[in-house]
Order: sequence, then structure tokens, then C-alpha cells
Amino acid sequence: MGDLAVFWAVVPAGGAGTRLWPLSRAGHPKFLLDLTGSGRSLLQETLERLAPLSAERALVVTGEAHADAVRDQLPGLAGDRVLAEPEPRDSMAAIGLAAAVVEREDPEAVIGSFAADHVIPDAEAFQAAVREAVEVARAGRLVTLGVEPTHPATGFGYIRAGEPLEPFPTALRAVEFVEKPDAERARAYLGSGRYRWNAGMFVVRASVLLDLLQRWHPELADGLRAIAADRSRLAEIWPGLPRIAIDHAVAEPAAAAGHVAVVPAAFRWEDVGDFRSLGRLLPDDGGVRVLGAAPDVVALDATGVVVPSGGRQVALLGVEDLVVVDTPDAVLVTTRERAQEVKAVVDALRAAGREDLL
Amino acid sequence: MGDLAVFWAVVPAGGAGTRLWPLSRAGHPKFLLDLTGSGRSLLQETLERLAPLSAERALVVTGEAHADAVRDQLPGLAGDRVLAEPEPRDSMAAIGLAAAVVEREDPEAVIGSFAADHVIPDAEAFQAAVREAVEVARAGRLVTLGVEPTHPATGFGYIRAGEPLEPFPTALRAVEFVEKPDAERARAYLGSGRYRWNAGMFVVRASVLLDLLQRWHPELADGLRAIAADRSRLAEIWPGLPRIAIDHAVAEPAAAAGHVAVVPAAFRWEDVGDFRSLGRLLPDDGGVRVLGAAPDVVALDATGVVVPSGGRQVALLGVEDLVVVDTPDAVLVTTRERAQEVKAVVDALRAAGREDLL
Repeated sequence: MGDLAVFWAVVPAGGAGTRLWPLSRAGHPKFLLDLTGSGRSLLQETLERLAPLSAERALVVTGEAHADAVRDQLPGLAGDRVLAEPEPRDSMAAIGLAAAVVEREDPEAVIGSFAADHVIPDAEAFQAAVREAVEVARAGRLVTLGVEPTHPATGFGYIRAGEPLEPFPTALRAVEFVEKPDAERARAYLGSGRYRWNAGMFVVRASVLLDLLQRWHPELADGLRAIAADRSRLAEIWPGLPRIAIDHAVAEPAAAAGHVAVVPAAFRWEDVGDFRSLGRLLPDDGGVRVLGAAPDVVALDATGVVVPSGGRQVALLGVEDLVVVDTPDAVLVTTRERAQEVKAVVDALRAAGREDLL
Repeated sequence: MGDLAVFWAVVPAGGAGTRLWPLSRAGHPKFLLDLTGSGRSLLQETLERLAPLSAERALVVTGEAHADAVRDQLPGLAGDRVLAEPEPRDSMAAIGLAAAVVEREDPEAVIGSFAADHVIPDAEAFQAAVREAVEVARAGRLVTLGVEPTHPATGFGYIRAGEPLEPFPTALRAVEFVEKPDAERARAYLGSGRYRWNAGMFVVRASVLLDLLQRWHPELADGLRAIAADRSRLAEIWPGLPRIAIDHAVAEPAAAAGHVAVVPAAFRWEDVGDFRSLGRLLPDDGGVRVLGAAPDVVALDATGVVVPSGGRQVALLGVEDLVVVDTPDAVLVTTRERAQEVKAVVDALRAAGREDLL
């Protein structure tokens, strides 16, 4: 349905993934890792998932420190399609910069922004949702893909959906974005059937996004368009740009003003925030779930998640629901239950002066 | 008390310590390891504990595969004081060979046989018990040091003690050796106050031991004395010797015949059979007990035993009573509870053809 020649994939590749230490490191962040056992990094999988829609029209926005690694992992992408941020300026600046660059190349362009570190196993369902979102975006709206909640998560923001948006097959009006709820509200959201997870997937005309931004944050829109007009000004302008998330900068006020649509995302989506969610993506044969070479793990009467990436034998005996992550210079042992607290280990190592391990 | 110039230390150094994998390996068995954090191996500590009693008069009996490593660890011991067994022939042949060698050098010699892989933190209490045992042995008895049981262990044999043996200060007649009991009998033994653990520590005149052996196993006594008379015959005679433990060959029948005394061993004794018992030897600050470099371990809200010997960082978060052993080519994760089953991991690796890790 529709003409995809206007569609550009925009992939913000940021975030260290501290809760995935020692697999993820400051110099080797989550999006550069193969966390699904596919043989490809999350970044590579993200671009592959988008390729049938965007062909060569893709931009990755990442930190300067990771730009070379990104280019290495994506040899099919022209070097200037990797935009290197001199320093982090949050998601509005990152996505907005890509929008401004695309807008100059094609004033009618529709961008779709998808984080480099999310996992969506069903690429076809994803592509179908994006196709509809592109159609809605061409009609002038800011579109978000709303993920069907599977449990009352307190770690995500939600989108409240309203009436169907004619003439699109599944799109709905987006009434409001709401912050991460407490457990009770999350259960209420789930029970109502009207709320969806905000997975940060936005589809919008580049010019519409920048015009909305112009309305609420003109200095940011002006700066981004100035950089796109003359890329040599990046280092000069970027550090002065305000740090703000795209949700706060544009999505929330645009929803309040009736400009936002939500396309139901009828596919499984995981942000792989920690080793527990990583484990959910791995094959389950009733014992341990292994990310890596199965022969490197011997597990007797054991359950949990094992990542043998240190080239060594990992042996588990009589343990339940553990997480064991082996790397060449560090090994982590925790539980699925406590996996979300791994940042505390990173903090302890930093306090101990072990920056070499971070 | 008494003249120790007749006393010879005999140290059988055998046993792989499979339940201490991956720290102990076939080529690097338990007795060669520092399992107490002292900086010295169990073998070295055993010889040091005996040195005030035996001075230079010490013999180590070990397998040919480990003889060089033993000599390397004991540079103060003359090379011919390390007796290399061409193949394992159990404890009677090993200790009997040492006895035969010593008997030729000094017909009045008293030997004390102490395994190379036991831990006795209080060297002075040990030496005091051995001194009394030497006196009792000079009077012609086979003497065993009987360890005061601290719990109803089912993993050790026991010695039933009888009446005091005049004129020695603490020695008792040994009524019988009993096999490893079941839990109920072990509790009864402990409650009776008359049973002690058989820790395999024997003190006896070399000639008495060989004469007792001559009585019940003449072919073994003859063979050992023939080897001692002409060491070049070792490879010829040794393979034909019967495999039998010293307890069955001599200690049990000698006790039944009234020739055995027990000297109460009023000291802590550990055979460090697995990582749980190893943990008991390590300092306890309420968190994890570490054998190795403390800075290599970061433990948050964790208890258990950690051995960081792989030169890498080991991080534990929110785990209880775990055992984590890190080595350069393998890492083991189990629980204190299951530590005694580590042999199952070794068996699984052998079945998988990973002899390189055993």
C-alpha cells in the first residue's frame, strides 16, 4: 500500500546498556552486540528489518566514539549516512538532525525512527505496521507505533489511544502520552485495553517533525536546520542545543493538539534492557538458555541464562534461575530476579577505579 | 618428651581432588594447590608442619606424573626423598614402601604418615599429638591420631577408643576401626563420646609396620623390602603388588589383635574435600569468602565462596551460598550445598571429550 520511495529509516544508536555489563561496555555498547544469537548485532538487525522499506535511504545517528564501529558493521551504508554526534544531546536533537538532513534531500520525505537496540523477531509484521504508519504520516500526522502490552510493565511510558482514524485500516487517534505508571495504574491501563506501550517508534514527515519542533522549541529546530544546510557547522552549533527527549519536545504537545496517530504494533517487541529480557529471547529447552556456543556450557540440574563469550568452559551445577555472563576479562553471576540491578556492579567497579572494565 | 631423632615424616601425595575442579586438575592435583590462601600448597604446609619433628628426615610418595612438581615445590628435600610410584597401588604400598626405605636407613625408625592434602591450622597442637604418638610407637604399637568429631559425619571412618594406655598422658587403646557409618550410627558415635574420626594419620615403627604386614600380606611386605634393598627393582616389582588400603591391610587386623593405640587429636582437621569445606577455612566477614586476590571480586548482597584464579574480575550480585571458581580456561558455578557433586561436571566433560579441561 502506497509509495515507499519517500520513506527514510532513521536509527538513533545510543545508550551504553549498563545493565548488560560485562557484555556491553562503554566502548562496545549494547547496539553493537549480538544479543539474539543471530550472528548479527542489534544495529545490523535493525537496519536489515528496515531495508525492504527504505532500501538505501537510511541514516544512523550515533556518538563520535562509536561512529567507526557503526560504519564497520554497516558496510552497505555510505559513510556520510552515519551522523556522529559530538556529544549526547538526547533523542530530539539526534532524530531532529536526521530529519533536517533528510528534509533537504527530499522535502516530501517521511522518516521512521527506530532505536538500534530493540528486538522485533517478526520483521514482516513490523514492516506492515510501518507501511501503514507511512501512509498516515504522509497525510500530515506524527505517528507512533504502539506496542500491545503483554503485562502491566512499569518500565515503559504508555500511549492512550482514541477513536479509529479513517480511512486507515488500523490507525487510531492518540489521545495522550503518559509517563511510566506505578504497578496499580499499569494494571488499570492493561485492563482498559486502550493503552499501548510507547516504544519510541515514530513515523512522520521530516518537515512536519521540524515544523512541530519549530512551534515549541524554535531554537532547536533552527539549529538543526542550520547544521543540515552546512554540515561543517555541526561542532559549532551542536553543543549549544538543548537536551530534551522527543516525547517531551514534540510527541506530548502534538498529541494534546490532536496531531498524533497510533498504529497498533501487532508484533513482539523487546528492548533487551537486562539479562532477564535477553533470556526471554533465547531458545528454552527447560535447562539453561545459552547465548553463544552451546558446547562451551555444561549445565547439570541448572536453569537460567548463560552467556559464554570468554572462550572458556562454563559449568553450572545445581543452580536455579542464575545469570552467568563470561567475558575475557570479567565474569558476572547474578539471578534473573536481580538482573535489572547490574548497574550497581558497574557503579562499584567505577568506585574501585576499575574504568578499564567499564 | 622423648627423642625425636628416630622420627621420619612420610607424606603420601596422591588423589586428584576431582571435587575441586576446575581448580584441581589431573595434572595439577589438590595437594599442589594453595587452598588456604597461605601462599603455600597443601603439600608444602604438610612438610612445614612436620619439619620441627622430622628435620630432614622426610619422604614423599607420589605418582610419577607429579614427582617433578613435588620436587619443585620442596627444594629443601633431597631428590631421592621423593619416591615415585610407577602406578597407583593404594595406600598400603605407598606407605609401606616409605617404611621399607626408612627401615634400611634406621632399623629403630618411627614413621608418621600424613596425607599431603589435609589442613591442620594449629601446628603446635598437631606436633604435641605426634610427639606423644612417637613415644607410644617406640613402645611397639601402631598408633593412630583420632580426630575429635565435631558433627555426625558420614564421610569418614571412625575409631572406637577403649581404656587409657599407661603411662602415656592421653593415649587410649584402639578397640576397632569402623567403616563410614550411616547418619543414624554417626549420631550414635558422636553421642557416645568414644568414637573418633580416622583421619589416616598413622605413627609406627617402620619395622613394626612391615612385620604386621608380613603377618597378613607377606607378598606385599616381601616386595616392598626387596625394592628398598635394591631401588632399581621398583619398576619390576611394583606392578605386581596388591592394591589395598593401609586400614584394611594392617590397621583393622592389628586393632583386633590389640596392637593399636589412639592418641586424641585435639586440633582442627579438614580434608578440604570440596569447595564447601574449603570455604570453612577462609575468613568470614559475612559476605563472600574469597580464596585469592580480594580486589578481583566484587560482591553485592552476596554470600558464598569465590575463587578468582583466572586473573579476571568476578562480580556477584544478589546470590546466596554460591560457589564460583574462576580459572583461565573454565569457570564453575554451583552452590555450597551441591559442591560435593562437582565430580558430575568432570564426568560430563569427559563424556564430551574435553580431556583438555580435566
